[in-house]
This record gives sequence, C-alpha cells and structure tokens, in this order.
Amino acid sequence: MAAQAQYDALLAHVKATIALSQVAGLLSWDQETMMPKGAAVQRGEWFGAMETAIHARQTAPEIGEWLAALEGADLGPEAAANLRLIRRSHDRATSVPVDLAVEIARVTSVSQGIWARARAEDDFAVFAPTLARVLDLKRQEAQALAKGGDPYDAMLDDYEPGMTADKLERLLGRLRHGLVDLRDRIRGSARRVPVLDHHFPEDRQMQLASELAGAFGYDWNCGRLDKAVHPFSSGSGNDTRITTRVDPKNPFNCIYSTIHEAGHAGYEQGINPAYLLTPLGRGVSMGVHESQSRIYENQLGRSRAFCGWLFGRMRDLFGDFGIRDEDDFYALVNAVGQGFIRTEADEVQYNLHIGMRFELEHALIKGDLSVNDLEAAWNDRFLADFGFAVDRPSNGVLQDVHWSVGLFGYFPTYSLGNIHAGCLHDALTKAVPGLERDLAAGDTGNAIGWLRENLQQHGGLYEPTALIERASGRAISEEPLLAYLEAKFAGIYLS
Amino acid sequence: MAAQAQYDALLAHVKATIALSQVAGLLSWDQETMMPKGAAVQRGEWFGAMETAIHARQTAPEIGEWLAALEGADLGPEAAANLRLIRRSHDRATSVPVDLAVEIARVTSVSQGIWARARAEDDFAVFAPTLARVLDLKRQEAQALAKGGDPYDAMLDDYEPGMTADKLERLLGRLRHGLVDLRDRIRGSARRVPVLDHHFPEDRQMQLASELAGAFGYDWNCGRLDKAVHPFSSGSGNDTRITTRVDPKNPFNCIYSTIHEAGHAGYEQGINPAYLLTPLGRGVSMGVHESQSRIYENQLGRSRAFCGWLFGRMRDLFGDFGIRDEDDFYALVNAVGQGFIRTEADEVQYNLHIGMRFELEHALIKGDLSVNDLEAAWNDRFLADFGFAVDRPSNGVLQDVHWSVGLFGYFPTYSLGNIHAGCLHDALTKAVPGLERDLAAGDTGNAIGWLRENLQQHGGLYEPTALIERASGRAISEEPLLAYLEAKFAGIYLS
Repeated sequence: MAAQAQYDALLAHVKATIALSQVAGLLSWDQETMMPKGAAVQRGEWFGAMETAIHARQTAPEIGEWLAALEGADLGPEAAANLRLIRRSHDRATSVPVDLAVEIARVTSVSQGIWARARAEDDFAVFAPTLARVLDLKRQEAQALAKGGDPYDAMLDDYEPGMTADKLERLLGRLRHGLVDLRDRIRGSARRVPVLDHHFPEDRQMQLASELAGAFGYDWNCGRLDKAVHPFSSGSGNDTRITTRVDPKNPFNCIYSTIHEAGHAGYEQGINPAYLLTPLGRGVSMGVHESQSRIYENQLGRSRAFCGWLFGRMRDLFGDFGIRDEDDFYALVNAVGQGFIRTEADEVQYNLHIGMRFELEHALIKGDLSVNDLEAAWNDRFLADFGFAVDRPSNGVLQDVHWSVGLFGYFPTYSLGNIHAGCLHDALTKAVPGLERDLAAGDTGNAIGWLRENLQQHGGLYEPTALIERASGRAISEEPLLAYLEAKFAGIYLS
Repeated sequence: MAAQAQYDALLAHVKATIALSQVAGLLSWDQETMMPKGAAVQRGEWFGAMETAIHARQTAPEIGEWLAALEGADLGPEAAANLRLIRRSHDRATSVPVDLAVEIARVTSVSQGIWARARAEDDFAVFAPTLARVLDLKRQEAQALAKGGDPYDAMLDDYEPGMTADKLERLLGRLRHGLVDLRDRIRGSARRVPVLDHHFPEDRQMQLASELAGAFGYDWNCGRLDKAVHPFSSGSGNDTRITTRVDPKNPFNCIYSTIHEAGHAGYEQGINPAYLLTPLGRGVSMGVHESQSRIYENQLGRSRAFCGWLFGRMRDLFGDFGIRDEDDFYALVNAVGQGFIRTEADEVQYNLHIGMRFELEHALIKGDLSVNDLEAAWNDRFLADFGFAVDRPSNGVLQDVHWSVGLFGYFPTYSLGNIHAGCLHDALTKAVPGLERDLAAGDTGNAIGWLRENLQQHGGLYEPTALIERASGRAISEEPLLAYLEAKFAGIYLS
C-alpha cells in the first residue's frame, strides 16, 4: 500500500478512537453537572467499558504495523505531527496492562464521589483508604510507563511532554524565590484593600458569567455553561463546554472561574477545524492549556483596564455594591490575602500553592510519604509556606479534586501555564499596542485574535516548548511572569 | 470449562456491551436536551464510533462459542432467559454488515436535525431526501435480518419479539372497528366540553411536573427531568431520565407527557436490581413499555378519581383557571376533539393515528409507497380516517421524530401498549379494590405496587406475550381496552 493510503487508514482508526475518548469526556461532564446521585456505581461500569473499548483500539496491532510502514515517510508537517502523537499515545497505551487501565477507570469514577463526601464531612479519614487505592494503581501505571526511568517523570509526560521533575524543581524554585520576596514586601505594605460585603443574586451572576464568556470570544453555538462544584471545561471542537460556580457573597469566584474556563474552551474552539478528531485537534499540553486560561483570567481579565470596564458592568447589574471606584475595584480583584484555597488564591501566592502540591505528590509517588501522613504533611508545609495554619481539611488536603481522580503530575502544569502566560503576555503587549484601550472597553478581540493566530490554531502541530517559544519569540523562563507581577503589585501595594 | 464459568464469562462480556449501549443512550439524551447546536456533525462521528465498538463486541466470535458450549445447559430460569436474549441479539448483530450498521448510526444522528429543521420550516421537501436515505438503509438492514422472510416482520421483531404484520393487522383492525363506532357516537353527542383559556406559567408547570413524577413513584435519586422538543425517557437502572415539554396555553401537554414518561421510567426503575446491566435488566419490549406509560397516563392519570385530585392541585398552583368543577375538568382532560397531533390525541382516536402510520410505513418498507408520495398519502389517509384535512406538514407527516431516526416497525407498539394496558387495568381494578379512593387522594402507591410486583420487576425474564398474560391472567385481546373506553366515554359523552 502507498504511504498515503496507509496513513489514511491509520488516521481513520485513530479518529474513531478519539471520538470514543470524547464520548468518555462527555460522561465526565455529565457526571459533574447532570448525573443523578444514585447512578454513581453504574457510571463506574460505563467508564470501565469505555476504557476497555478505547484501550482495545489504542493497542490494536494494526497501529504498530501502520507506524512501522510509515517510518521515514514524508507526508508533510501535519502528518508528521500526527504520527509523532499517535506513536507516543500507542507506546503509552501498550505499556499499561488492560486490566490495570480498566481498574483505574472504574476506581477513579467512584473515588471522586467519596472525595466529595469526605470534603462535605470535613474528614480526611473518609477519603484516605480510597486515595491510597488510587495512588497504588497510579504508581503501578507510572512504573509500567517509565520502563525503568523515573515514575513521576512518566506521569508528567502524560500532561506536559518533555517536562521532568528536575526541570520543574529548578523553574519553580526560582519562581518561588521571587514570589516569596514580593509577597513579603506586600505584607509589609500599609495599603489596605477594601472588603466586599454585599449580596450578589445567583441569577445575575450567571447572566454576567454568560456575558463574560461571550466577551472573551466563547462560541455559544459550540458550547454551553453550567454549574459544577469544581469548575472545569470539557470537550473540544464543536462541543466544548464550560462550568462555573456561584457564591452569593463573592461574585469573583463565578466571574474568574468563567473567564478561566472560557480560556481553556477558547483554545479548543480556536484550533484549525481541519484538525477535528485528529491528534492535532486538541490543546497540545496541560501547561499550554493553562497558559490560555490564565492569560484570559489574569493578564487580561484582572488588568487595570478590563477591571475598569467590569466595575461599570457590575454596577449596572448589582447596583452600588460598596466599592467606591475603579481603582478600589482593581485593588479588590487583585487583593493579596491569607486564603486557604488554591483556586481563590491571588496571582502572587498561587504558585506557592502549586509548589507544595508538586513536592507532596512527588514524595507520594517516590514512596517518601504515605497517604496516612499526607494530611499532617500538608498542614506542616502550608504553615511553613503561608504563615498560618489550615483550619479544616476542606480548606486543606481535601480542597482539590485532582488526586481523587488519579491526576498526579498534573498540578505543576498550572504553574507552567502561568510561566507560559507570562512569556506570551510580554509578546502580546508588544504586538497589540492598543490593548489597554481595547480592554477598557471590554473588548478582547485583538488580544484573543493574536493568541488564536499565534498559538491556538496550531493545536498539536508543535511540541509545547516549541509552540510557546515560537509564539512568544523567546526561551521559556519565569522572568516575564515575575516582571509582570512585580510591576502590577508594586503599583497596587508599594507605590 | 464448566458451564457456570462459561456463562459467567459470557455475561461479563455482555454486561460491558450493555454498558456501551447505555452510554450511547446517554449521548442521545444529551443530544436532545443539552448539546450545543454546532456539535451535530461531531456527534454523528461519536455515534458512529460507539456503534463500531458495540457492534464489534456483539459480533465477537467468542459469543458464538460460549453460546454453543452452553446449548442445553440448565443454569436456572434467569440464566436461560439471559441466554435466550443474548442469542437473539447476537443473531441480529451478526446478520447486519458492520459498515451498514455504522452508516445507519451516522446518518440517523444527522437526519434528526434535518427533520427538526424541516418541521420548523414546515416543508417536507427539506426532509424527503434524508428520509429516503434512512429508509433505504433501514430496508437493507431489514432484508439482512429477515433472511428471506418478511422485512417488516424483521423490523417489528426488534421492538416486539413474536409480533408480525399479519397479527397486527387483525388486532388493530378489530380495535379500529370498535373505536370508529365509539367515536361516531361521541361526535353525535350534544355534550360540549369546556374550553381552556388561561396562561399557565412555565415554572409552575415544571414544578407540577416534578410533583407528578414523584406522585407516580419516580425515583429522583436515579433520574432527572428536563425539557425536550419531543418528550422521551432514557436510560435504565439507576440512571433513568425523563423529559417533558411546556406549552403555556395547554398545561396538559406537560402534565401527561410527564406522567407518560414517568411510566416508562418507572418500569426501568422497578426492575429487579440484580438484573442491572444484564439483558434481563431492561423493559422486555416496546409494547410492554408502552403499556406502563399508558396505564400511568390514561387508566390512572386520566381517571375520574385522579382528575379530582389534580383539579385541586392545579387550582392551588394556578388559581382559578376557568374550569368550574371536577366533572368539567375530567371532561376537559378526556375531550374527544379534532386534533392533528398523535401525542395530543384522546384515548379514543389515538389508535387511529397509529393505524395509519402502521399501514403507511408497512407500504414504504414493502416498496408499495415512495417517500416522494408519502406526504400526499399521509394527507389522503388522514382525511379519510379523521374527516378533516391536514393544514400543514408539521401537523401531518413531519409531526413525529421516529422515521427520521430510522424507527420503522416501532409505531404499532404504541397500540399494542394500549391493548396491553387495557388487559392489565382490568386485572388491576380487581386486585386493588381501594384504587379509586387512592387515586382521589393523589396516591398511586397501591396501583404501582401491583404493577411492580406483577410486571415491572421481571424485566426481560418472560417473553412479552407471556408476561402480559401472566400479569393480567388472560389472553391478550383488544376487548378490555374497548370495554374500558366504552364505559369511560359513554359516561362523559353519552349519558
């Protein structure tokens, strides 16, 4: 068979596999937004059956034959990138025993419900045995993937190809150094930001959330917005859904969750439509994904210019909510506080949250830390890094869903996303000179146009590092992020 | 291997296949209730991939080997029933070429959207080419299944095992005779039922719908209620969802759609939990399914006793809506009118709608009628049967979703359901002497308890005819239905 025909056959096979993965993604979305409570066990069987079907396709012997036949063939850069991604996915799938993959899918479906109950009851002991089981399964998986190498690196590779624990330790170490220095200076500042004390009705928050998603380019024809305990985005191509949550006392929870998820979804919706259902047709890595959610949320959504527009819009919707002017609103939105919750953390301290999760999970995977000691280790580390004590597990070790569903090696991609966003924002401000004027009018069109043109449209065409360096015109570094944070927070707290 | 071990291996295989089918069912639910408009094509690919995965499992060679090894084994009545159902499903799956099955799944996913557009635009020509394609594919499938027998009977067998076009023609022929006679006497009656002219707010209708589903035993822990253009129920076991629709001028649309779907869902929720994910774990046929939805909706929900309770509840929710008393309300709910729409038809004329669909689709499948002539044939037949002309396609040939998704041989099961419901209701009234008193208090507990005990719990354990005859204690006949209708409508119109 000619190379092109082999490639077409391979791609048709892979497209149907990707379609099944997208179906499994919809099952997860449904589980978080729509599923009746009583359906949890049955849903676990569904995930198990989907995993079996997907795994069977991913490990089909024909794939190996097609790939061998296509070794060295030149079918253009898009085919080369697809083949690279298919090869990696096939290698990973054939490394993990099918029984293990099925068991992970089944256990992590049920374990999430147990985590949610433990969080509601504020009792880590309710969750610990389940977490130990999930950890055990994921370590088995990582060992199978690592093939003698470092298991944690093998986990990272699933979310951020090319990244290692060593590289992360250096990058996050330098970042931490700069952040602690800035945070300490802020703590010494006499500037006191205003406090919010107002009731923001749920329906108006959801109305604003819809407006904001639209203002950030979200395509409603190919998506929808619902509520979830832990906001997330889901899907790709023409079915990319977002979720948010509503706290009547704190509208910024809803607002910035929505903008964040609109960033993830915008990336998926912005990919070249020709890549639909191919390996190129989704965000290239979690870190790059997070760079989009973060630049939407922070560098754009929490900018002085956009805050000016948002303040006016919120006054229209909620009336006088006790904040005097745009400058106070901007300071409020960017307040550096003393919170427990990662997802509510300010830009200065957010990556300190990630740093501790990275080190804790790295220790869990290496076997240096046991699940039974995790709560105490969390609390000790939190006190050391943040200077105050965790008051209850739902504010501490139980706050994040990730470990319950087996996402180890995932947390660091959040910090990578912030680092990437710093690099991209530096280039964006030079490329779009009218940016502040746009944002002051609530218009993100030129900024998102630049991101779409330079990054989003490419999907999986380039490797993560190459993509960020290509778009930002520089080597990946924490420096632009630190410089941006220094300028922004010095302006608020230190002037 | 011992027979029990062979059986266990077979059942484990089948359970995972059933799980995938349930996932595909959720995709359909999502498509009708949640899916963004722009996702239709992508969704078609998903259905195609699911169909491929399901078909591969249904036609796996091991199934034939297991079944052969288990021939004659005695593992008890439940295993025998599972084996019978697995054998039938395997025979059907291996008879249909995989390419054809995939193409049907793909085309019928997209075709439903085209039907919806044609209905919205009131233009059959928009839908006709698509319907012709669906019909062509389904005729190919029926020929493959019939193996030289009658293709329409092969289609029927998918929904109502054991039923044939010949049997249906006789049963529906006798039914039609009785219905036309009763309808003509009603038309000659001087009794005029009241007319509804009031606005019923959507949110209160949905509140009432929730109450009614609960009153009819719907288990909210294992289900949910949403809106859909064409109400349906979906799922089984612990994830059984229902939908309804809301017309602000006509609350009975919402009310009786909800009770109807709660009947379907109640059947699924009432099946022995030990049957979950096995072939026994779902309603045994569409006709038996419809017997449950219909007995909930009509014999219980439209009874004089329950109407008395419902009238009071509606006065609480909507205030005085212009109906004088319970008797007028009962007459209104059971009004025999001149409507176009099957789903809104009264109990007397409903089966006349089905009769014409049965004959039209039978002619389409036999090749005696072409899609291009269908609209005219529909309109002619409607005029002949109902005595007035169809005014537009959305009130005629475009009103039902069924043919657009390839459901040929399905319509007759609605009439079978009514016939079965007549038999069951006759037995129920004898077995539950306090039934009217219960219903007058809005309490369906004893009635549904009887249905659950005598029919629902058994799932697929007995063949449809045997199940109805076992529960009702008599041979299946249209006579109890006609006697019930005669007594009911003579009381309203002819006394």
